[in-house]
Amino acid sequence: MSTETDETSRVDDSFHVFDTTLRDGAQREGINLTVADKLTIARHLDDFGVGFIEGGWPGANPRDTEFFARARQEIDFRHAQLVAFGATRRAGGNAAEDPQVRALLESGAPVITLVAKSHDKHVELALRTTLDENLEMVRDTVSHLRAQGRRVFVDCEHFFDGYKANPEYAKAVVRAAHEAGADVVVLCDTNGGMLPAQIQAVVATVLADTGARLGIHAQDDTGCAVANTLAAVDAGATHVQCTANGYGERVGNANLFPVVAALELKYGKQVLPEGALAEMTRISHAIAEVVNLTPSTHQPYVGVSAFAHKAGLHASAIKVDPDLYQHIDPERVGNTMRMLVSDMAGRASIELKGKELGVDLGGDRELIARVVDRVKERELQGYTYEAADASFELLLRAEAEGRARRFFRTESWRAIVEDRPDGTHANEATVKLWAKGERIVATAEGNGPVNALDRAMRVALERIYPQLAKFELIDYKVRILEGRHGTESTTRVLVTTSDGNAEWATVGVGENVIAASWQALEDAFTYGLLRAGIEPAE
Amino acid sequence: MSTETDETSRVDDSFHVFDTTLRDGAQREGINLTVADKLTIARHLDDFGVGFIEGGWPGANPRDTEFFARARQEIDFRHAQLVAFGATRRAGGNAAEDPQVRALLESGAPVITLVAKSHDKHVELALRTTLDENLEMVRDTVSHLRAQGRRVFVDCEHFFDGYKANPEYAKAVVRAAHEAGADVVVLCDTNGGMLPAQIQAVVATVLADTGARLGIHAQDDTGCAVANTLAAVDAGATHVQCTANGYGERVGNANLFPVVAALELKYGKQVLPEGALAEMTRISHAIAEVVNLTPSTHQPYVGVSAFAHKAGLHASAIKVDPDLYQHIDPERVGNTMRMLVSDMAGRASIELKGKELGVDLGGDRELIARVVDRVKERELQGYTYEAADASFELLLRAEAEGRARRFFRTESWRAIVEDRPDGTHANEATVKLWAKGERIVATAEGNGPVNALDRAMRVALERIYPQLAKFELIDYKVRILEGRHGTESTTRVLVTTSDGNAEWATVGVGENVIAASWQALEDAFTYGLLRAGIEPAE
Repeated sequence: MSTETDETSRVDDSFHVFDTTLRDGAQREGINLTVADKLTIARHLDDFGVGFIEGGWPGANPRDTEFFARARQEIDFRHAQLVAFGATRRAGGNAAEDPQVRALLESGAPVITLVAKSHDKHVELALRTTLDENLEMVRDTVSHLRAQGRRVFVDCEHFFDGYKANPEYAKAVVRAAHEAGADVVVLCDTNGGMLPAQIQAVVATVLADTGARLGIHAQDDTGCAVANTLAAVDAGATHVQCTANGYGERVGNANLFPVVAALELKYGKQVLPEGALAEMTRISHAIAEVVNLTPSTHQPYVGVSAFAHKAGLHASAIKVDPDLYQHIDPERVGNTMRMLVSDMAGRASIELKGKELGVDLGGDRELIARVVDRVKERELQGYTYEAADASFELLLRAEAEGRARRFFRTESWRAIVEDRPDGTHANEATVKLWAKGERIVATAEGNGPVNALDRAMRVALERIYPQLAKFELIDYKVRILEGRHGTESTTRVLVTTSDGNAEWATVGVGENVIAASWQALEDAFTYGLLRAGIEPAE
Repeated sequence: MSTETDETSRVDDSFHVFDTTLRDGAQREGINLTVADKLTIARHLDDFGVGFIEGGWPGANPRDTEFFARARQEIDFRHAQLVAFGATRRAGGNAAEDPQVRALLESGAPVITLVAKSHDKHVELALRTTLDENLEMVRDTVSHLRAQGRRVFVDCEHFFDGYKANPEYAKAVVRAAHEAGADVVVLCDTNGGMLPAQIQAVVATVLADTGARLGIHAQDDTGCAVANTLAAVDAGATHVQCTANGYGERVGNANLFPVVAALELKYGKQVLPEGALAEMTRISHAIAEVVNLTPSTHQPYVGVSAFAHKAGLHASAIKVDPDLYQHIDPERVGNTMRMLVSDMAGRASIELKGKELGVDLGGDRELIARVVDRVKERELQGYTYEAADASFELLLRAEAEGRARRFFRTESWRAIVEDRPDGTHANEATVKLWAKGERIVATAEGNGPVNALDRAMRVALERIYPQLAKFELIDYKVRILEGRHGTESTTRVLVTTSDGNAEWATVGVGENVIAASWQALEDAFTYGLLRAGIEPAE
């Protein structure tokens, strides 16, 4: 075992949490990482406390080469070691003189993962060399990197398919890597076609037959990557390769978050630094932001829906005891329980939701029934309150107080987008509003029609409500409902607004994106002013 | 075994594929099904050949009552039997007089699933009755329904947690159901907290100790629902409860598609009618359309990314043999292999993609390098070609032919959206275009600014290109890039257009949604005209 792992800040070397988001995860359709993105993700993964961060393939890709150079300069890793990924030397060559192998050393990474072929057919068809030369490539490359003072892991590509085709050869590759000094030999289900029972049987046999320390790298093509990873651990693997949010080629890789959650919460095995698991939801969402993908709402443990309850039946039971419908306390992974407002929800859900928002409905059955009816009616039109708590709170208060709280009234508005012959655009909006008995007409420009409307609304109202200056529209989502009719569909807009302290989400629905946006903006301004403690003027 | 299952159109009764999309799946956050939606989904599930379709809880919900009434009238099921879901009778009551039980019979469903408590703590806390009375409720309700000629399955809610807390009581519930005449006793991991090894051990023990026919109902809270379902089958369960696309409360339920694919393709067990598996991708997407959720791109087997390859390394290998990087032939599940165009892709990917689109790049290395550079440059600006094949083909042709094909040239355009004091909206667009040397100015109204632009473009060009009349914009997606800056971000629009035969997707990027839409529309019209064999005029 290498000495780096004895540092106190690191989790015990006896079990490895190895992340490959930056290499294998980046293969996911739709992901396109800059060097800055990679550095940010590496910091998040280090915060989370994984033991190893595979940063890419230096030499094969200029961005990856730059990443290693900058990561060494710019990041002071507290928990993780940086890993460079590469291949064994070329057939017929010499590891010491192989430019690709040299680039791995030049990356400065203390750990190197070498990918090696372990499927006889792949050696012959893809590498176009002999089975013996492939073994020699593994031995030569591992020995050379070890002699240069690097720790080496070997990824056996297509191991499980290879084992099925030729178990003796597959094991020979494991032995070659192990005997040449690889610390861990990682069995990869590269095509992702395996099921847990198969993984468990093969890992157990290979462990018994070779004595090598084994790792697992599972792809999710059967929807079993998390279970396959755990099955390998059950069989004795002590190194798991995963990616944040399961990003990866095709269906994806084993998802880091449910794997470590299962190990810590179900196996009782500490694999992360103390307290790290409670950061899991935050880190999952932060990484999704960096790769510019919407966080999966239904991801185990960390999705916003992972502890959300809708069924009326469940809501009644949850009033009795939240543990009846939760397998763990969501706070252990940094998530929270939520009650969803939907027309399937019964009165118990609305009452609980009111409590969550600080509106005491006091068991007023008639009021609760009115709110349920109103929600049903609006959801039929396309509104959704599950993702727009602020709009729901406005609806709830309007029903509870018998009238909607209003700070201003809209007479009309207009937005114009113009593409000029020189290719530039003009976006202009005019709003006509009433506030405190005064009629205000204001016009503003923006970089788009919604931005222009947002600005015109501020120009009109800021003198009367100076608190508006602090509001910032920080997220904006458009969903076309009934998508088979193109632009003739209903449009739903969700807007997230911040006042620097809190964020709130509002919803608007309309026959076009501008009209729906206007509604969501109206709710956003109204809710923000109520939140600031201002008295409604209308 | 009941006689209904001897009909030749049905798969052998020895193994049940039981779908609960319409009941448990509908608990998913964001799903809100009308009766018409439920009927459509039931037809798709019957086409797919599941043995049982759980339609809802008649009596508890007026929509579900209506669904059963209409399904009996309107659907001629070829493979599936309709199942009504309900609870055991009330504590202290009598099944024959229980209104909820009567509603189950009145639904006319030939099969009834009864949910029963099997966790001692739940009996006491949620049902507020004694352990003995709960057993009596199971016996009484099952016997009564059997006496009325219905087939009965019993869902043991929270079975695995209950088994951990009090294994003898949990098994007593299984025995009570079995002895009273339930055909299958379904062990439910209601909180979804289990892992495959635990499921397998408990199912094996309960099977040995009770002799009841067992089923499995797994929730996905650990990310292992598919594996948990298969683990139960490994232990002897012969009835699997799943939902289409894994829809369900919190994280979701065991996903029907990877479960049946594993059973058929990995276990070699026929559980669907001949040929049904090849319809899986189509049916998965069709159901997603009905529930109005974007089909998950990364879903195993059926996602558009499930057989998509991006890595340059893989692309080179795939040129040698596609099976090297696929665990199954995608056609077996109705899916297809795709090569992705992205700046990670090497030349091999671009060449393969060209072939897929019917553009022979003939190994022209300089041209391929130019295309790779152009793709990189455009992706940096926010374009994505992975989801916009038609825009990519236009780019490819422009590079191959040295100039872009154009049917018209845009001088300028303008869109106005006006919200009037009476609450109605006016949407008007004016375009100024050049085609075949002629300057054309046209104005049109629409139900939104993009629709108005689409119409104005048609008005302007239809006289010159009558083929445009057949084009229909059928899907429209907006994505805000760099989402933390609200409306000041870059907007990416993806448009799908159809000419009645084929569909094509184009992309536009701009600082606002209207400008980005215009670009995507321009590409959509241009590609459609090229496809129709028209010669470019400009």
